[in-house]
Amino acid sequence: MVRLGQDGQVPSDVIHRTCSAVSPADSGALAAAIDRQARLTKPAGSMGRLEALSHQLAGVYAVCPPPIPAPVTVVVMAGDHGVHAQGVSPWPQEVTVQMVANVASGGAVVNALARQVGAAVEVVDVGVAAPLLFPEGVVQRRIRSGTRDFSREPALTRDEAVAAIEVGIALADDRVGAGDRLLVTGDLGIGNTTASAALIAAFTGADPADVTGAGAGSDARMVAHKVAVIRSGLARHKPDPTDPIGVLAAFGGLEHAALAGLLLGAAARRTPVLLDGVIAGSAALAARALCPGVTAYLVAGHRSSEPGARVALAALGLQPLLELDLRLGEGTGGVLAVPIVQAAARMLGEVATFDSAGVSSRED
Amino acid sequence: MVRLGQDGQVPSDVIHRTCSAVSPADSGALAAAIDRQARLTKPAGSMGRLEALSHQLAGVYAVCPPPIPAPVTVVVMAGDHGVHAQGVSPWPQEVTVQMVANVASGGAVVNALARQVGAAVEVVDVGVAAPLLFPEGVVQRRIRSGTRDFSREPALTRDEAVAAIEVGIALADDRVGAGDRLLVTGDLGIGNTTASAALIAAFTGADPADVTGAGAGSDARMVAHKVAVIRSGLARHKPDPTDPIGVLAAFGGLEHAALAGLLLGAAARRTPVLLDGVIAGSAALAARALCPGVTAYLVAGHRSSEPGARVALAALGLQPLLELDLRLGEGTGGVLAVPIVQAAARMLGEVATFDSAGVSSRED
Repeated sequence: MVRLGQDGQVPSDVIHRTCSAVSPADSGALAAAIDRQARLTKPAGSMGRLEALSHQLAGVYAVCPPPIPAPVTVVVMAGDHGVHAQGVSPWPQEVTVQMVANVASGGAVVNALARQVGAAVEVVDVGVAAPLLFPEGVVQRRIRSGTRDFSREPALTRDEAVAAIEVGIALADDRVGAGDRLLVTGDLGIGNTTASAALIAAFTGADPADVTGAGAGSDARMVAHKVAVIRSGLARHKPDPTDPIGVLAAFGGLEHAALAGLLLGAAARRTPVLLDGVIAGSAALAARALCPGVTAYLVAGHRSSEPGARVALAALGLQPLLELDLRLGEGTGGVLAVPIVQAAARMLGEVATFDSAGVSSRED
Repeated sequence: MVRLGQDGQVPSDVIHRTCSAVSPADSGALAAAIDRQARLTKPAGSMGRLEALSHQLAGVYAVCPPPIPAPVTVVVMAGDHGVHAQGVSPWPQEVTVQMVANVASGGAVVNALARQVGAAVEVVDVGVAAPLLFPEGVVQRRIRSGTRDFSREPALTRDEAVAAIEVGIALADDRVGAGDRLLVTGDLGIGNTTASAALIAAFTGADPADVTGAGAGSDARMVAHKVAVIRSGLARHKPDPTDPIGVLAAFGGLEHAALAGLLLGAAARRTPVLLDGVIAGSAALAARALCPGVTAYLVAGHRSSEPGARVALAALGLQPLLELDLRLGEGTGGVLAVPIVQAAARMLGEVATFDSAGVSSRED
């Protein structure tokens, strides 16, 4: 099911071209934002992290004041994991395809939250292990029906990893082309916190015990087993963090690779991306390894209670907007942060200045 | 300018009647919410603090699932402080009335944020020290033109404090009567972090040095001076925390008393209130001293970087939703949390259950 080029090779020049198109934040817009911020009718610095966020948005969009980041789409990448066979989740694998249908019909938590903030939800089958279906509302981009078991063999071929990245790039391109000014990462996939922990350990050098958590509800015994499975995978594949395609191929998942591509594609189109939790964090580490400049376009929506999320965000140098003990995934923590990002832009654009409002300055 | 009854006495039976109308959270709706939560298509506990928040809303509204908390109004209480004469702020007192006009014309940060989340803004002159004006959009409920200097004499008479509380009760009644399902506290008043710190010290017994901060931008020398002024006020008035009217009369401000009344009035009408920062926290301590049951109706929107906010929230037993280093006031931190509160209710009401969505259960 890999979408190969006519010569049988997956063209990696799409990835190279995309990475080359990622520019730094616009320094002129950034300087204008800092200057404008100082003239708004409020004490300097009093809006804390919203101020820095508004500056980031000006730099990303290359205009000051920045537009309000809307419309917004949550792109929920769904995939299955061969490592599920090792007993790393208390949930049966069939829950992935069931939850894809639940999201497609609007019944999942991410849908309720997206309705609250006015975001659209797009659910993408990039690698579900179930008969190929095209239910209404599911974007069909399957590379293969689940990854291989990374504790026994590489989860993906390099070509499959590249193809999944390219799916993400193309979807970002589609969404930005359709007018979206902000994307949110989402994910579905029983077993995907195991792949995420392996990726975070591979990219950061962290010990698996420090980045592996309960996921969707493992007990302590199962968490210890997850750690052992990840350790054996790391020992088998000896991942090289400077070879992100190789790392993604070793551990998967297809949704992680596709999310990495989504970040690259959005950054290449000067569009910010709100990261959800630990799956997004591990995908962002892969994207950064492919293109260090991508981090300028990223905003961490929240810090998941999954331990790998903290390690990934620290490695990325990102401070999350929310910390509400969420660990669901689906994009829920990213979606909850959407109004904060929009409020930051709106503040910089709409608040009166001391001059325009006739408000007196400080006396010192 | 005190609104006295015909016999020259401010009737405190309004406060007593309001406090008597504050009921505990509805235990049936609370139990139904916890039961429903367990059947939603997500791992148990995976939505962290949003789950507890949705249960609280069911208990407050006495129905499960709870309605989405909308419409929303931010009630911005504005007042001035006699203690400003002691040099506790780098800003001239005239900024209060200028900012009232800025909010009334939609130019302040709270207005931009409220537009983002779909909330209305109501700005109330409960005690501004400026010629009595009725500019369009300002609700005129002035009790007196600023408080007295609490470092030299009580800031308010007991009657004035009661009258301000009653203003808040009446405004809550008006807003709930008009259909609002959620109120957000807002405040304007040069010098009001000094009054807040004094109130927090009086109600919690905290040392003034531990609850006094930079406010709208004091330097270290001015903060030390604020602490000394508060210490002298505490020594002069010897406040009794079991006499909340006396504490409010000693230190003011009129906006603090009015906000305390707003909380009581909302709770009496089974309407939750999102607290903004340190002014709201100190007002909530006064409201709780008048009516302990009020805290069931409160949600802490954020933790201000003002040190008293941390102490007040801890004393109230409230954990804030956001922590973004905000210290502006106006209601900005409360407004930013509105979509989170709405999302919590929406989650409980709209997410499919395992049965309805045909999603498999855990295997253990």
